[in-house]
Amino acid sequence: MKLNDRGLLIVLSGPSGVGKGTVRSALFQMKGHDLVYSVSMTTRKPRENEVHGREYYFVSREKFEDCIRAGKMLEYAEFVNNYYGTPLEPVQELLNAGKEVVLEIEVQGATQVREKMKDAVLIFIAPPSMDALYERLTSRGTEPPEIIRQRIEKAKREICLAYMYDYIVVNDTVENAADKIMAIIRAEHARVERTIHKYKELLEVNDESK
Amino acid sequence: MKLNDRGLLIVLSGPSGVGKGTVRSALFQMKGHDLVYSVSMTTRKPRENEVHGREYYFVSREKFEDCIRAGKMLEYAEFVNNYYGTPLEPVQELLNAGKEVVLEIEVQGATQVREKMKDAVLIFIAPPSMDALYERLTSRGTEPPEIIRQRIEKAKREICLAYMYDYIVVNDTVENAADKIMAIIRAEHARVERTIHKYKELLEVNDESK
Repeated sequence: MKLNDRGLLIVLSGPSGVGKGTVRSALFQMKGHDLVYSVSMTTRKPRENEVHGREYYFVSREKFEDCIRAGKMLEYAEFVNNYYGTPLEPVQELLNAGKEVVLEIEVQGATQVREKMKDAVLIFIAPPSMDALYERLTSRGTEPPEIIRQRIEKAKREICLAYMYDYIVVNDTVENAADKIMAIIRAEHARVERTIHKYKELLEVNDESK
Repeated sequence: MKLNDRGLLIVLSGPSGVGKGTVRSALFQMKGHDLVYSVSMTTRKPRENEVHGREYYFVSREKFEDCIRAGKMLEYAEFVNNYYGTPLEPVQELLNAGKEVVLEIEVQGATQVREKMKDAVLIFIAPPSMDALYERLTSRGTEPPEIIRQRIEKAKREICLAYMYDYIVVNDTVENAADKIMAIIRAEHARVERTIHKYKELLEVNDESK
């Protein structure tokens, strides 16, 4: 029996290189869930094979800035001269329809979600150690040592923001992390703040029939 | 990887007739858990087959009242001229040893635990409806209608206290309820309040090795 009809907004976030995308993908491959991924909006140009509305909504810089000014972004950030962000309206619609909406975003964006959606579930995906993060970043083999060093420094600052989240899930193995996130989603549906209103309503209705 | 070494105190509570004992039993039969049941103390006489230290610690009224005065009870209540309660010390020892300690107690006792152990996880086991609770109470076939009526009235008052809990788990089926409780236990271990201290410690230690 489900006492919480409204969907949950689940924010997966954490430092670059921690494996957010892999964990999200494992999560969506699990059975018996009702998860929906919220597509982000960006001003960067689509790469080959990328489809508007699937990987991203590709929009002009002008259109993105209009959305920011109109308060239509749940969160956004600028990287290397391009905007990336989550439009608010589709997220609201999905939540009202009882869907579990998953965002996979940077730490900067997650702190904006915390302010705008008090009942969002913020999950910090954490590396098992700084060494492990270092290894993951270098194993990509694509970036010079100086960039790696900068990413590590940024990760350290981001880890200090973990207290703003609701949960810390260590990505020791992808399966463990995905399992834990699923347990968190189930538990959050049972939290008193989300259920007590409906539950009392339910019992009062039955009262009247006596 | 476990970021929370300390065990959790898990309190299962709810109205009489809701099936607390059955849910607890199903929970303990699940695999891969580290749950320990905390044995209560009582002044009532042992029944046949009941063993001191297994079903209850059977003590004298004098000894029980000594424990209350000395602040040695985590929670207690008096029913039909007998005391029932949970001694604090064994619970503390189990928690320090990293065990998940499960209490199955009345609503009155749960509200006392809330005050004494701020980080306890309080789970309200709820009937799917008042009709269902009525049916469960009458199906025992042992109690006169007047007693049943009193129990229903008491249940209604207790349901109003559910807001003091952390979670509401509806006992629609025993398996569902036990599953949900297990998800809650896993999720609680990942909560930021319980993990952030250890997590930062861990990363600082690794920092020094660089």
